[in-house]
This record gives sequence, structure tokens and C-alpha cells, in this order.
Amino acid sequence: MSRKLLVDIHTHLYLPRYAQLLRARSQIPRITTLNGEERLVILAGEASTGRPVGPSYWDRNEKLRFMDTHGIDVSIVSPANPWLDFLPPAPAAQACEELNSDLEEYCATSPQLEGTRFKRLYGMAYLPVVPGAEVDAVCRSVESLGKLPHIKGVILGTQGLGQGLDDPVLLPMWETLARAGLVVFLHPHYGMPPSVWGAQENGHVLPLALGFPFETTTAVARLILTGLLDKLPTLKLLLAHSGGALPVLSSRLASCIAHDPVASSRPQHDARYYLGRMWYDAVAYGPEELAFVASTVGRAGRYAGNGKEPETRGTERLLWGTDHPFFPPLKGEAMWMSVTENLDAVKNAPGWSEVEKEGVRGGNAVDLFGL
Amino acid sequence: MSRKLLVDIHTHLYLPRYAQLLRARSQIPRITTLNGEERLVILAGEASTGRPVGPSYWDRNEKLRFMDTHGIDVSIVSPANPWLDFLPPAPAAQACEELNSDLEEYCATSPQLEGTRFKRLYGMAYLPVVPGAEVDAVCRSVESLGKLPHIKGVILGTQGLGQGLDDPVLLPMWETLARAGLVVFLHPHYGMPPSVWGAQENGHVLPLALGFPFETTTAVARLILTGLLDKLPTLKLLLAHSGGALPVLSSRLASCIAHDPVASSRPQHDARYYLGRMWYDAVAYGPEELAFVASTVGRAGRYAGNGKEPETRGTERLLWGTDHPFFPPLKGEAMWMSVTENLDAVKNAPGWSEVEKEGVRGGNAVDLFGL
Repeated sequence: MSRKLLVDIHTHLYLPRYAQLLRARSQIPRITTLNGEERLVILAGEASTGRPVGPSYWDRNEKLRFMDTHGIDVSIVSPANPWLDFLPPAPAAQACEELNSDLEEYCATSPQLEGTRFKRLYGMAYLPVVPGAEVDAVCRSVESLGKLPHIKGVILGTQGLGQGLDDPVLLPMWETLARAGLVVFLHPHYGMPPSVWGAQENGHVLPLALGFPFETTTAVARLILTGLLDKLPTLKLLLAHSGGALPVLSSRLASCIAHDPVASSRPQHDARYYLGRMWYDAVAYGPEELAFVASTVGRAGRYAGNGKEPETRGTERLLWGTDHPFFPPLKGEAMWMSVTENLDAVKNAPGWSEVEKEGVRGGNAVDLFGL
Repeated sequence: MSRKLLVDIHTHLYLPRYAQLLRARSQIPRITTLNGEERLVILAGEASTGRPVGPSYWDRNEKLRFMDTHGIDVSIVSPANPWLDFLPPAPAAQACEELNSDLEEYCATSPQLEGTRFKRLYGMAYLPVVPGAEVDAVCRSVESLGKLPHIKGVILGTQGLGQGLDDPVLLPMWETLARAGLVVFLHPHYGMPPSVWGAQENGHVLPLALGFPFETTTAVARLILTGLLDKLPTLKLLLAHSGGALPVLSSRLASCIAHDPVASSRPQHDARYYLGRMWYDAVAYGPEELAFVASTVGRAGRYAGNGKEPETRGTERLLWGTDHPFFPPLKGEAMWMSVTENLDAVKNAPGWSEVEKEGVRGGNAVDLFGL
């Protein structure tokens, strides 16, 4: 590739069919109307007025316009939370099949990136992982994605079949995902129980800024403790928001495991080892954060135990993203601060070479997703 | 000081009078007896068998022996959680006065560190901050600490008077603490609601490794959002466990505040600015973590807004600690891994000079606590 691509791997959509589903609902999650304007209400404890929602969530032209404004060549779009989590198993399975077919068409009919083999849009699919579902149905859904050539991964929340992702019943799903070689984009929705945010009115700040990364951190730590990453070393887990708090708490996690009589013998390796087995979006909003996350990936080999593995730079597992269409500019500016912040973070990451920055901006995504 | 001191600023105790209080209880928190061995049960959701508890929690000779084994010159001991949180206001106030007097004696009668002006032990006191208490009573308790010369700070949980530390009613307490120049050691106890840890049996790992730092992070973010750190720039807040997830989520927090119509105008500065106004224990168990925390302290001046403040190295606000007597070695080794890990983290922190390492190991504590 002579061209230096900017690839956005954290960019969401609500397909029109999904928006209709939310409009038809009278409970959270839903799309409601206030003074003639549509509002999205998806978080527990969120005021019933929610936040504005519009074409940037479902209109492909808006997605492409946003990409053009910010110089984004390719986007790997994923459905926004809360996915199908609120549906019973049968309607979830049906909606999943229809939505994934819509998503394939959304990507397949997108423009070619001029002068390249790439489409402008690829997708990560829904899975019908909802309480009460059978894991076999989930596995069949994963396998059916093989027929959708522009689907390069799946997006997955943390509730599993109601007991979280460390539910042993889910093992066949993970095996099927690993076998299919699909990227699994682990993404939060539930945050933490709203009581922890207190009584002061702080808008959406605490559930988004803290609750989301806490949720991802918890889910991955629980996966590490089950030994899943020992069983399935080829599973491609991509963590939202740069892994949340996992990198900064990984040595504490390792120490707490080592000191716990119940858990100490559970994972085969020091917890820090597994950070080198996963991928991370570069949606952390600051250059020091990105450099640090890379360092915790790079040092993982140090914790391989017997048969030491080499340390690496760590940057090879970071992939740039925007979280569009969330975090729109408060004053309607054309350039989104949430995008420029994450671009600047890569540009200013201390110690990174230009080649590494290019990898984080696009090359790593081309490799991981096999575009 | 020609001597290079090793000072432990994160080291706990249950005074004998407090242990008696826990033994007399039939509900959590309590000390119970199982097969003739005393057990400590303090966490919600913790099995009724809790964990072993013994003289390392209350016997001063054990504390000094531990210090000698690990080459620790001076310890600034603080009462372990959950402090007085479970008592009604009147008994809490009385216990507080008695326990702080015990603590003063515990420190005042400790040995001199040979050839120096230092005692081996100093203390951080209890405050009677419990649901239903009057803030005036808390303020009087703070002021009374002026009569206890070996008390250099207070330890504070996050529940406040029942509504958390961002409760506006608490402002006089913060003002009194700032005026007294006492270090406020902010320490977790509650973690997150146990439901988030799921159904698998992972011992204490998740509430300790993740819940504790999540709680501290949440409490500090809530304080930043109230504008407390704008009102009281001289308040000396010391954050347990290196600030938990706050450093790695600080740019995300800043961005979420900037994008939130309710919160965007609340704090005077970018959220990252306030990280340079606080202090952090160096109890993060890994060298990359420590270097990263320092970098987020050091960069704070970049976010001062108008009238830019200089960036610093950041190491000047990190202070070494052990979390003794928690995290004892599983196999009874004399040298505690939880100590050597945190010593090695300082020794191996990438990019730190020898002088900076000495500061983190002891000099910064002498300065901050005014020993």
C-alpha cells in the first residue's frame, strides 16, 4: 500500500430497520419525540428526554459526508448499543438476520475508495446474544456471516445470555468466533448501576466517561479469570475505548490474582500477559494514554512465564477510531472535536515513529480485519 | 537529609479498640471466629468466612517487624476500611475521639528512627463522617486533630454523610481540612455493587482489583465536577492506588465533560488540569503504570487554560506505599510480594532519574506530610 489510509474502526450506526424498532417501543431503549425532534433514550437512569438523534445515526450519506469532512478513507461500521439486548430470543434472531443482511448491503453498495481495492464501508455484525437464547443459535448466526463478504467482525455487548460473557455456556460461541477468524469488538452499554453516580446532576458524563470503560474492564477481567484466553489463543478480541481501565489496572489485577487463594491458579499466565493477546481501539482522547496502552501491550511477553516471548512496541495492536455519531460538537462545528482529539493523540503519542502512527491510523486495521 | 528514607504512606491498622468493636458485631463489618481462627468480613457480598485476620492488623510490634523486614524507615499508618462508616453519629463521634487518641499514642510512643528527627510511625486519623452526622461535628473533629502532633492527615472513605463526597453540605469539612493543611487520604471501601462481578467464583479478585479503584475514580470525578478543586486549590488530596482509573480515563473524562451540555461549563479547567493538583500513592504494582501516572500529573499544566502553567515531571506527587497488612503472601514468605512489586515498580519506572525514585520512595512524603 503506497497510500496512507485513515481507517475508522469505532464508528456506529442504527440501520433504518433498527431505528424503526426503537421508535415502536414505549420503554428504554427507545426513540421518542420531543417538540417535534427525535430523541434517543438508551441508558438506565437517563432522563426521559435522552439526547438528540437524527440522520447521522442511520443515513449512509451522512456517514460518508462525515468521513469526507475528516479525511477518513474507510470505516468499519458497527451497530450502536444496545443492539438486540432487549429482545426475546426469537425476535432477536429474526431481527439479527435481517439487520445483518441490511448491513451487508449498506457496505457492499458503498463507493469504492478511489484507486484502491477497498470499499469505503465494511461492517461488524449483530449477534443474537440475548437472555434466554440458545448458544447453538448464536453459533449458527456466526457461521451464517460467512455468506456476507463485507462483514469483517461482530460487535458484542457484555450481558451474554444474561450471566455475562464469562458464562461457561458461551464457550461454543467463542470457539465458533475464533474458528471464523472474525474480529469480536467488545463494547459497553450497561456501565455501572446508576446509584454509584450520586445525586448531583452531571448529565451523561459519569456513565459515559467512567461507566462504559469500567464495564469493558470488568468483562475482560472476568474472561481472563475463566481461562478463555488460554483455551482460545487465536480469538480476536478488540476492546472499545482502548480497553478502558484494564491497562492501568492490569498489574493490580495480576497481583490480586496472585494473592487470592481461590483465583491464583486459574489463568495459566500473569494477567498482564493477556493484554498482548488483544487489540485496542485508539479512542482514548490523549497521547499519553495511547503510549501507555501500547506499553502494556508491548510488555506482555515479559509475563509469558516459561518460554519467554519477546516484548514488542505494542502499537501494532492499536487501531484508530472516532465513536461517531456519538459526541457531536456542542455548537455544531463542522470538524468534530472528538475526531480531532483522537487524531492529535496519535500524532502526539510520545515515542512513536511515523511508521507506527501510520499503522495505528490505518495499516493495523487493514491487517486485523483482512480488508 | 543525607539519608535516603523509605517511607510507607499506604499502610493500615485496626487499633485494638477498633478490633474489639468489630468482634462485638453480628453483621458485616465484623470479626468472627472459624475453627478457632479469627476472620475479617468487611465487603458486601463477601462469603461469611471472610479472610484471616490477626496481630499484623493491630499489634504495633508486628508493624515494626514488617517494616524492618522490608527496610521501611517510616510508616504513616492509617485506619483500614470501613472506618466508622457503620456507626450512628453519636457513637461514631465518641469512637473517633477515642481512636484518634489511641492512634496518637501508638505513633508518639513509637521508636525514634536512629540518627534522625523522625519517629518510625506517624498517623492519619479517623473522621466521624457517617450518615446522619452534622458537618459541624466533622469540622470540630478536624480541628481537634491540631492537639495530636503525630497525626499528619486523615483517611476518608467515599460515602460522606450518605450522599457521597460531592454532597454540597460537606463544603465546610473540605474548607476546614484545607485550612488545617492536613493530607486527606481518599480510600475506597464500597467498590461497585456486587452484581457487576457476575456469578463465577473469583474470590476477592474483582472487588479488590477493579471495584476499589473504580470507586476512587468515581469519587474524584464527582469532586472535579462539583468544582471543589476550583474552590479549594490548597486542599491536599492523596489518592489511593495511584488514583485508580482516573489517570487513564482523564482525557476521556475531559472530552465527555466538554461534550455534555449540562456539565461542560461546570469545572473551570479541563479535567486533566486537576490531576496536577492531587497526590497519588505509588501502589500500582507495575513500572509502566507509575511512569504513566506521573506523566498525567506532569502534563496538567498543559490544560491550565489562560495563563499556562509549566509542565512538570509529575514524579513529585507520587508517594510509595505497601497496603500492609492486606495482601499477605499466600505461602507465608517473609518478604511480601506486594511490597517487592511496588519497590520494583519504582526501581524500574521507565525514564525516572535516581533522584526522582528517591523522592517517590520517601522524600515526597517527608515534604507532603511535613514530617
